[in-house]
Amino acid sequence: MERYVLRARAVDQPGIIHKLTGGIASTGGNILDSAQHCDEDSGQLSVRVEFESGADSEDIRTELVDRLAQFDPIIELRKVKDKRRALIMVSKLDHCLDDLLYRYRRGELPIEIALVVSNHEDLRNVVEAAGLPFHHIPVTAETKPAAEQKLATLVNESRTDFIVLARYMQILSDDFSAKFAGRIINIHHSFLPSFKGAKPYHQARQRGVKLIGATAHYVTADLDEGPIIEQDVVRVNHRSSADNLVVIGRDVERKVLSEAVRLHADDRVFLSGNHTVILG
Amino acid sequence: MERYVLRARAVDQPGIIHKLTGGIASTGGNILDSAQHCDEDSGQLSVRVEFESGADSEDIRTELVDRLAQFDPIIELRKVKDKRRALIMVSKLDHCLDDLLYRYRRGELPIEIALVVSNHEDLRNVVEAAGLPFHHIPVTAETKPAAEQKLATLVNESRTDFIVLARYMQILSDDFSAKFAGRIINIHHSFLPSFKGAKPYHQARQRGVKLIGATAHYVTADLDEGPIIEQDVVRVNHRSSADNLVVIGRDVERKVLSEAVRLHADDRVFLSGNHTVILG
Amino acid sequence: MERYVLRARAVDQPGIIHKLTGGIASTGGNILDSAQHCDEDSGQLSVRVEFESGADSEDIRTELVDRLAQFDPIIELRKVKDKRRALIMVSKLDHCLDDLLYRYRRGELPIEIALVVSNHEDLRNVVEAAGLPFHHIPVTAETKPAAEQKLATLVNESRTDFIVLARYMQILSDDFSAKFAGRIINIHHSFLPSFKGAKPYHQARQRGVKLIGATAHYVTADLDEGPIIEQDVVRVNHRSSADNLVVIGRDVERKVLSEAVRLHADDRVFLSGNHTVILG
Amino acid sequence: MERYVLRARAVDQPGIIHKLTGGIASTGGNILDSAQHCDEDSGQLSVRVEFESGADSEDIRTELVDRLAQFDPIIELRKVKDKRRALIMVSKLDHCLDDLLYRYRRGELPIEIALVVSNHEDLRNVVEAAGLPFHHIPVTAETKPAAEQKLATLVNESRTDFIVLARYMQILSDDFSAKFAGRIINIHHSFLPSFKGAKPYHQARQRGVKLIGATAHYVTADLDEGPIIEQDVVRVNHRSSADNLVVIGRDVERKVLSEAVRLHADDRVFLSGNHTVILG
Repeated sequence: MERYVLRARAVDQPGIIHKLTGGIASTGGNILDSAQHCDEDSGQLSVRVEFESGADSEDIRTELVDRLAQFDPIIELRKVKDKRRALIMVSKLDHCLDDLLYRYRRGELPIEIALVVSNHEDLRNVVEAAGLPFHHIPVTAETKPAAEQKLATLVNESRTDFIVLARYMQILSDDFSAKFAGRIINIHHSFLPSFKGAKPYHQARQRGVKLIGATAHYVTADLDEGPIIEQDVVRVNHRSSADNLVVIGRDVERKVLSEAVRLHADDRVFLSGNHTVILG
Repeated sequence: MERYVLRARAVDQPGIIHKLTGGIASTGGNILDSAQHCDEDSGQLSVRVEFESGADSEDIRTELVDRLAQFDPIIELRKVKDKRRALIMVSKLDHCLDDLLYRYRRGELPIEIALVVSNHEDLRNVVEAAGLPFHHIPVTAETKPAAEQKLATLVNESRTDFIVLARYMQILSDDFSAKFAGRIINIHHSFLPSFKGAKPYHQARQRGVKLIGATAHYVTADLDEGPIIEQDVVRVNHRSSADNLVVIGRDVERKVLSEAVRLHADDRVFLSGNHTVILG
Repeated sequence: MERYVLRARAVDQPGIIHKLTGGIASTGGNILDSAQHCDEDSGQLSVRVEFESGADSEDIRTELVDRLAQFDPIIELRKVKDKRRALIMVSKLDHCLDDLLYRYRRGELPIEIALVVSNHEDLRNVVEAAGLPFHHIPVTAETKPAAEQKLATLVNESRTDFIVLARYMQILSDDFSAKFAGRIINIHHSFLPSFKGAKPYHQARQRGVKLIGATAHYVTADLDEGPIIEQDVVRVNHRSSADNLVVIGRDVERKVLSEAVRLHADDRVFLSGNHTVILG
Repeated sequence: MERYVLRARAVDQPGIIHKLTGGIASTGGNILDSAQHCDEDSGQLSVRVEFESGADSEDIRTELVDRLAQFDPIIELRKVKDKRRALIMVSKLDHCLDDLLYRYRRGELPIEIALVVSNHEDLRNVVEAAGLPFHHIPVTAETKPAAEQKLATLVNESRTDFIVLARYMQILSDDFSAKFAGRIINIHHSFLPSFKGAKPYHQARQRGVKLIGATAHYVTADLDEGPIIEQDVVRVNHRSSADNLVVIGRDVERKVLSEAVRLHADDRVFLSGNHTVILG
């Protein structure tokens, strides 16, 4: 028996779930955990099913595609043991990378790290010491299109499922972002209220915020405005200088990014309009 | 179109979900939100489905019972608008009652409060001012069996779905607890570590705990050891006297009990062995 | 023996604390709890001392003023039993008022509620049922100056120490705000990121925020940008409609406002530039 | 100008703070941040002062000792730049060690790691790769007294200020614990309620706990019952197997231990009876 995760998205209509579970049952599958949500704004149905089956994955997929054809769904089927493959991008800051590598080594994240790409050489040693391939792709205004082409090639060659921007300090082009829509996760600091402009931690310090947060989101053309996957905050006080706030902010960034990667890699995050539905 | 909540429990077998969703589809229902979990320890399948349908509720129920007969499930079907009916029990402390009444008045809790029962008269005015019936059932060691008989009669007459012990300071008999298993919610303080014996807040103060918590659970014969529905904690420090800790503890008790009542009344809590599965 | 709270603010210079504690010691006082912070940005020293003394409060005050004269401090001395007097302002929403009244009745907030003022009659019954005076001061664009004059008169007559805007939906004039600087507490919702413009909860729903927050702050001319006293967040998910988010937001507003009132009334909040230092 | 941290403990009496701040002022010191608390149960005064001074540390100490002699205080004076020296003890589990090393490398913890001691060789490579000395001290029932003697020698030779049991799986003797009272920090998992006996995570799973916690405390003869320094919890649900709970528990252990080490190393933790007063 093999354990599978099935994801499906479609415009909601009566009977989809019945057809879908019929497909699973007809190939001898037994559902272990499932969740489904119909977004009342967008009308999109999102379904995640974990099941066990002795059938071949292609047979299951064919059965599901046939049965659901009338609903024109997007179906993804994966053996749980075939983990999602991540390409991690970094620049010089290593706090998010460090946390991802730590959890990866311990098997806490259901991912394979295909490779790490950086626009700097600084973190090569850390990555190679972890036994992972490191690619240096420098980026300037002139070389950006070529650099993104090279990146896209690496994504394909490494069979990467999704890209994690672990404090990668370059902005991806709109074309690249669109091409990998829903497959690039970014992390950035968040405050209540937001602070526009430079030195947000200094602004936060001046206003005396009591909470420092972080937001992980999918990348869209508007870098910091994509659909939110995960957020968290941590309490601070007047004793913290702006520099202390930066350190505290790094901690919550690590935590939030790792949790977003876990949710995505576990196939729990569904895009629906400009927001996410997180099942399970 | 009417909105329904369906709950089902059964020993897990392949095909149950397919049969169940077939029953919903065949009566014209459209699933809006659903969740399902198979407990790997107990083998119990728990299913919660929200759907819209124009069919009559008895017709839907009959259809489901017929289709699922081979799995011998426990099925509950409820129109969302027919809220769960609660009987609240109190003694003299009113902090939990106050929070339940506040949320009830605002429609934040999906319940009808059928009545409030107390072994004291102290809170009659509060209850009656809220326009709710209040029953005084005094309890002594001698009158306890008769008192519980009276309580059981009230439960039946008021068509109560579940009982909320909102700091009710009497211990219900094993018989009564067993009769209403999974339908009585209790709240008590919780600490890390636990403190056995009298004056737990004084013990907590002496050990300098940094967190004060509360646990809402279903009542079983062993009063404080039933399946846990909800827990939360709040941070405290050395400035808090034992009396302050009691006040802080009341706050977290209010919050946790109201959340447990919301989850139960929304049909999200499933008993599975000695623990709960909370869907949604 | 009487228990006192002493607050002092001054431009930081060596020796202030020594002089101040000398004043307390010389009048037979014994310090029970104290905290002090020098803000490295503004150079302001903030001091809070709780002590017991058998001396008369005027004698203590005179002694302190004399000893500290060279530092030109702002000194406030209060018997702990003489609670800070609050004037609460509301409009039609009662969730924050309800929480303040609940905690007031139980003695959980170290305040006296001098009176409640509203620009509507809706909450008169709730306030008078709690045994508190209620004043209706309607406000239109034309009557606003007169209304604020009336309010200022009520503040004086009622010996109000501070004003709590418990979801008061009128904007106070810059003059009024300046006159009571550091003595008016407001509450508003907060998100990560912020949402500008109308219907912020709908925007939050569309972006799929995972946290809903609230911020309590002192009122300045720029209504939502004053020094922050307290913030908190609560976790939400895709199941929450914009209306649900509003309900959840109310809950965190209640909690944050009551905590801000507690901190202020306990003399723990010090203004320093555009932020607060919270001692203890 | 040098930045100092001063700690003082004494039986509370009027005038101590005045004498102490007089000593600081007389040696040209300027107080930047201070906190003080008198424990109403034990009568112990705890004081922490951060100040700047151009005076020599021995001169300041002498001045303070002289002025406070009548109160028989315990005084500790430290330059902020002379960080507390920690000896970390581990066995085979590396999650707490990993977090301490990560924060140490980044300068987030105000400590020097003097050395790491283990009863196993497993983590030698990790420690030596971090450029830190590793000592293997195997322990059996027979060799325990000799092992602890060796450990005590290492503590002295390395000028260790405090010992961190980062999941060290041996129980220290009562003699050793007493000798270093208030200077050994331990971490263990915590639940609400507590689970006695073996396999606590399996018991927690069976009861369906919704929170998993950790407690950092000073070691006393009764290993898990010493004064609590820090606690925290994280939310879990029915999807977590006992093995998942162990993983989640490790995360909160890391966080709580690092925070306890930070508080201790920053001289913020005061023992008072069987609990801690944490200033700042």
